[in-house]
Amino acid sequence: MASKSVLTPQAEDFPRWYQDVVAKAEMADNGPVRGTMVIRPYGYAIWERMQAEMDARIKEAGAQNAYFPLFIPESYFHREAEHVEGFSPELAVVTHAGGAQLAEPIVVRPTSETVIGEFMAKWIQSYRDLPLLLNQWSNVVRWELRPRLFLRSSEFLWQEGHTAHATYDDAAAYAKRIHLEVYNDFLVNVLAAPTYLGIKPPSERFAGAINTMTAEGIMRDGKALQMATSHELGQNFARAFDVYYQSEAGQAELCFTTSWGASTRLVGGLIMLHGDDNGLVVPPRLAPIQVVVLAVRDEPDVNEACEKVATALKAAGVRVAVDHGRGSFGRRITDWEIKGVPLRVEVGPRDLAEGRVTIVRRDDAQKSAVALDAVAAIAPGLLESVQAAMFESARRRLEESTHDVTTIHEALDVAQTGFARLAWSAVGDEGEALLRTEAVTVRCLLRPDGSIPVSDTEAGLHCIVAKSY
Amino acid sequence: MASKSVLTPQAEDFPRWYQDVVAKAEMADNGPVRGTMVIRPYGYAIWERMQAEMDARIKEAGAQNAYFPLFIPESYFHREAEHVEGFSPELAVVTHAGGAQLAEPIVVRPTSETVIGEFMAKWIQSYRDLPLLLNQWSNVVRWELRPRLFLRSSEFLWQEGHTAHATYDDAAAYAKRIHLEVYNDFLVNVLAAPTYLGIKPPSERFAGAINTMTAEGIMRDGKALQMATSHELGQNFARAFDVYYQSEAGQAELCFTTSWGASTRLVGGLIMLHGDDNGLVVPPRLAPIQVVVLAVRDEPDVNEACEKVATALKAAGVRVAVDHGRGSFGRRITDWEIKGVPLRVEVGPRDLAEGRVTIVRRDDAQKSAVALDAVAAIAPGLLESVQAAMFESARRRLEESTHDVTTIHEALDVAQTGFARLAWSAVGDEGEALLRTEAVTVRCLLRPDGSIPVSDTEAGLHCIVAKSY
Repeated sequence: MASKSVLTPQAEDFPRWYQDVVAKAEMADNGPVRGTMVIRPYGYAIWERMQAEMDARIKEAGAQNAYFPLFIPESYFHREAEHVEGFSPELAVVTHAGGAQLAEPIVVRPTSETVIGEFMAKWIQSYRDLPLLLNQWSNVVRWELRPRLFLRSSEFLWQEGHTAHATYDDAAAYAKRIHLEVYNDFLVNVLAAPTYLGIKPPSERFAGAINTMTAEGIMRDGKALQMATSHELGQNFARAFDVYYQSEAGQAELCFTTSWGASTRLVGGLIMLHGDDNGLVVPPRLAPIQVVVLAVRDEPDVNEACEKVATALKAAGVRVAVDHGRGSFGRRITDWEIKGVPLRVEVGPRDLAEGRVTIVRRDDAQKSAVALDAVAAIAPGLLESVQAAMFESARRRLEESTHDVTTIHEALDVAQTGFARLAWSAVGDEGEALLRTEAVTVRCLLRPDGSIPVSDTEAGLHCIVAKSY
Repeated sequence: MASKSVLTPQAEDFPRWYQDVVAKAEMADNGPVRGTMVIRPYGYAIWERMQAEMDARIKEAGAQNAYFPLFIPESYFHREAEHVEGFSPELAVVTHAGGAQLAEPIVVRPTSETVIGEFMAKWIQSYRDLPLLLNQWSNVVRWELRPRLFLRSSEFLWQEGHTAHATYDDAAAYAKRIHLEVYNDFLVNVLAAPTYLGIKPPSERFAGAINTMTAEGIMRDGKALQMATSHELGQNFARAFDVYYQSEAGQAELCFTTSWGASTRLVGGLIMLHGDDNGLVVPPRLAPIQVVVLAVRDEPDVNEACEKVATALKAAGVRVAVDHGRGSFGRRITDWEIKGVPLRVEVGPRDLAEGRVTIVRRDDAQKSAVALDAVAAIAPGLLESVQAAMFESARRRLEESTHDVTTIHEALDVAQTGFARLAWSAVGDEGEALLRTEAVTVRCLLRPDGSIPVSDTEAGLHCIVAKSY
C-alpha cells in the first residue's frame, strides 16, 4: 500500500507511529505553550461523538450537567491533605489579573472536587436533597513535563462527575453504576474496547479517594491505558468542605461523595487500541464519518452517482462524506485509510456502467462488489459487522497478551510486552517497588471471576501488572 | 400570586429582581473567585439548549468545531496593536506552573484570534484550503471589576468562530451569513428575541476589527443588550500572524479573516427580555422543560394520571417534567413559574373524576380545561402559540420603546428609559462623547429600511442610542 511510506510502521517505532497518525490523520497539533494541544476538526469530531455517547449515558444514570469555575482559590487545595499533596506539583497558578497582583493566588483547576465540595455544602440541607448527582464537561490543567498529544497534555478536556450521598453504600453503588453503565457500556459498545475492570491498589488511588475503580485497556504495543476512573471519596472531601445533611431523625450527618472522569485521553486510546500500519481504525458506532463515498475519477456521471449513494445512505441514518475525484485516487484512498473511516464505497466509470460499486472495509480490507442501489440497504448491517469484528479482535488481543504467572519476577518479564496476571498477595509493597524500578505498575485488582472487588483487602484477589501510558 | 412576595418587583428595583430570579430559579451562584460563576443545572440546561440550536446552525453554515488551547503566550497579544490595547486591562496571567516560575508569562485566553491566527498560518497553503471555517466552544476569561452573573463574569462560556478567506468580499459575505443565518435565526426563531441588526460605530468595534455587526435586544427596563457580534477583521490578524495563501496565479496573498461569538450572556438576555414579576419566562423552543405535569395532591391515581400524560407528551416529542404532589400546591406552582416553564398541566382528583386537566400558559396565565387524553395532541400546537406570542410581545415592546428623534439631547432624554433612533450624521464624535457622560452609547448603525450597512461611511444611516448592559 502507498500508505506504508506515509506512516512509520508500528513494529519499527510505536511512539513515532502514534505521532505520525496524530499528524497525518489531522487529529491534533502541539500548542504554543508547552504541553497544550490544538484539537483539529477531525480529532474534535471524534471527541464530540465520545461526548454525545457518554453524556446520554450520564443523563440516563440521573446526573445533571452544571458548570463550576476554572479558577479555584489556592487555599481550597490545602483543606484535604492527600489531595494537595497529590496535585501540588501539577498546578498552574494565576498571580496577576486585571492589571494587578492578586491578594491570593488562584489555581487553574486540575479537577474540581474542592470547589464543588464548597457548593454541595451550600445546596444540601436535608436527606431530601440527596443524592445530589452532578456532572461537568470542561477543560482542566495539570502541568506535564513529558507531554504527549491526547495521552498527557497540560490542558485536556474531560467530564468530571461529582455526587453526594447519605450513606457509604449508596455512594459505592452509584460509583459502580457509573463505572459499569456509563464507562464500560461506552467502552464495549461504542469504542469496541475490552478492558480489565478492577480497583486500583492503594498506592495508585486518586489523591483523596478511599477506592478507585478503573478500566484498563491494552494498546497495540502491549502497554496498558487507563480509560476511565470512578472514585469513592468516602467522607474525606465532605469533611474538608462541611458537606452535611439533616437526616430524617433530625441529626446533622456527613455526606459520602464520589467523583468519576473520562477525558480526551480516550482519543489516544482509540488510536493505539485499533490503529494499524495504515492509520486509524475508528469503530463504526463512534465514527463521525462512517462511510466515505469516493469518486474514482472526477466525471459528472460518477459524481452524480456518488451523491445519489450518499443521499440514500444519509436517509438510512448513516454518517457520510463524499470525496469527488480530484487528485490521485491512490492518494485519496491512503488519506481516508489514515483517518480510519470504517467503510469506503468506490464509484468508478467502469463499475457504474455495470450498475455496481465496490465496498471496502477498513478493518480487514475485504472488498465486495455491490449493486449501486443496494448500498444503503447493506451499509448499516455491514457497519455493525465491522463494529462486532473490531471488538472481537481487540478482545482476542487482550486475552492473548495476558499471561498468568505466579511470581513478581515472571510478572516483570511478561510486562515487557503484555499483561501479567497473578495473585495480589504475591505482590506486596516490596513487589510494587520492584516493578516500579522497571516502570511497571499494578494496573488493577480484580476477582478471579473478573468482577470488581469492593476493597483491596478481599481475599483471593488477582492483579494485572503492565507498563502503561 | 404567592410569588409576588418571593421576587422583588421589576418596577421597584430591576437589578434586584434580576438577582432574585437568578437565585430563585436556581440558575447560577457567584463563584469563590471574584467575578466567576457557578452555573447550576437548570441554568446549564438552558445553555445546553442554546448550544445545541446554535451549533446546528453553525455546522449548517459549513464551519467545523475544533479546540485551541486555554493558554496563550503573552507575546502573541503584542502582535496586533489594537488587540493588545483593547484586552490588556482584562487579562489573567499565569506566572507559575509545575512548581516553578515560567520564563514567559502565559495569558488565559480572553478570545482566541491570536492563537488561531498562528495555526491558520500553518494549515493554509493554497487557495484550495480556503475558506477555512472553524468554530470553538470554550471558556474565556476577562477580568471584571463589576461582575454580574451571566451578564459580566470574569469567566464565561461561549462559541467563537474564526474563518479565513481569499478575498475581502468572501470574508464580509460569510460574516454576514453567520450574523443572519446563525445568530439572527436563533434569536428570532428560538429565543423569541427581536433585535436591531446593524454595525457598531468605529468607537465600539472589537479590538482589531475593521467592522463589527451586532444584534441589540431590548430588556424589560429599556436598556440594550448586545446578544451576539460578528467581526470582519480585514487583514489585521492575517498580517500579524502571517496567514498567507498561494493564489491560483501562484502569488503569495494575505488572507482576510472573520470572528464571531455568542456567550452565556444570552442567558442573562433571556431573563431580562422575557422575565416578569413571577420570574423567568422561557420560550418553548428553547425550554429544557416545555411542560411540567403537576399533581395537585400526592395520591396514587393522580400520580398515575400524571405519568400517563407525561408519557404521551414525551411520545409527541415534548420535553416534560413531572411534579408529584409533595409539599404545598401553591408553593410548587410558584417554583415552576419562577423557572418559566411554558406550560403547566395541573392534574387534581376532582378534574380527574371528570377526565379533565387544566393547562396554564406561563406567558399570559391563560387557563383551559382539556380532556386528559387530548393533552398530548394539544400541547405541541399550544407551545408554538406561546412561542409566537412571546416573539410578538417582545417585538411590540421593542417598537414601542424606540422613539425617533432629531437631536443628541432628545436622544439622551429618550435613552433614560428606551431606545432613541436618529440620523447617524447628527451624532459625531462630540455627540458620542456627550452620550457617554450619561453612560449612553450608540448601540448600532443601520439603514433606514432596517438592513445592515456595509460600512459606517454609507450615506443616510440611522443609529440606535441607548443605555446598555
